[in-house]
Amino acid sequence: MYHQVIAQCTQSLKNLETCLDKADRYAATKKFDVGVLMTSRLAPDMQPFIYQVQSACDYVKAGAAWLSGQTPPGHEDNEQTIDELRARIRKTIAFAESVKEAQYVDASKSKVKLSWAPGKAIGGQDYLLQMTIPNTFFHIAMAYAILRHNGVDVGKMDFLGSINLVDA
Amino acid sequence: MYHQVIAQCTQSLKNLETCLDKADRYAATKKFDVGVLMTSRLAPDMQPFIYQVQSACDYVKAGAAWLSGQTPPGHEDNEQTIDELRARIRKTIAFAESVKEAQYVDASKSKVKLSWAPGKAIGGQDYLLQMTIPNTFFHIAMAYAILRHNGVDVGKMDFLGSINLVDA
Repeated sequence: MYHQVIAQCTQSLKNLETCLDKADRYAATKKFDVGVLMTSRLAPDMQPFIYQVQSACDYVKAGAAWLSGQTPPGHEDNEQTIDELRARIRKTIAFAESVKEAQYVDASKSKVKLSWAPGKAIGGQDYLLQMTIPNTFFHIAMAYAILRHNGVDVGKMDFLGSINLVDA
Repeated sequence: MYHQVIAQCTQSLKNLETCLDKADRYAATKKFDVGVLMTSRLAPDMQPFIYQVQSACDYVKAGAAWLSGQTPPGHEDNEQTIDELRARIRKTIAFAESVKEAQYVDASKSKVKLSWAPGKAIGGQDYLLQMTIPNTFFHIAMAYAILRHNGVDVGKMDFLGSINLVDA
């Protein structure tokens, strides 16, 4: 289910683009610079909106890469504008979607090294469950929460995106 | 991987208990009623902390139940205190952990009905990926964000909980 889980994380990044569009429109309506939202935080010692989006992107990119036996492509954290953030999201999605289901064949046997734990690693399944999923949704949710707190009319359906309904 | 994903969602509810403990200590240190945090929100038209925890619990409970061919046990939304919330989390965890891996054998073939989409349903795998995972992490993250915004010293490691490291 590696491919499917990464695909869902990728979909959640796409949903974040809807939130960016709403942020843009809200700033235009209220006549303020949308850059204010890009640097907003929920607490003074918390990372700002731009970082939350960069970080969500990096966990999706890293999951798609390491679990398919690749080194993640380098994406510099130099975004400052909402359009640059959109580009960051899109290049992350493009990379994640370039990985085919068959490339995850050895994911369960992989060991992923973590920069903050020298000499240690995490097995592929634990990496997916304990790192990729919680971190991706955490940072997307923090980005959402920053917008929500600042009055942007994002709702949970924006966060969830489309749901594959079938006849009961 | 149904059992493992539900186990991770369950672990994330356990991590939320750490955040509740920190909220309790923060309120005691600052000499305010922790109930203030229980009714806090990030925006006036957003659901308060108690609802976020109840909702996270319900998505874990529903995932564990429907995907193992069971009807979820009824848990009334009547919590008002932090201790009542702890009890809600614990009974949810107890139910989720009562479901054995073998009980998810037909999860992929299941169809789950959604109260807000009459006549429609969602396949088991989509339910896990599009409903259980995003909703569980969304509501836990919103609970976390409400505490973080109010000054409780929760950090991302509280949200993530323990990571299964092995030698590299």
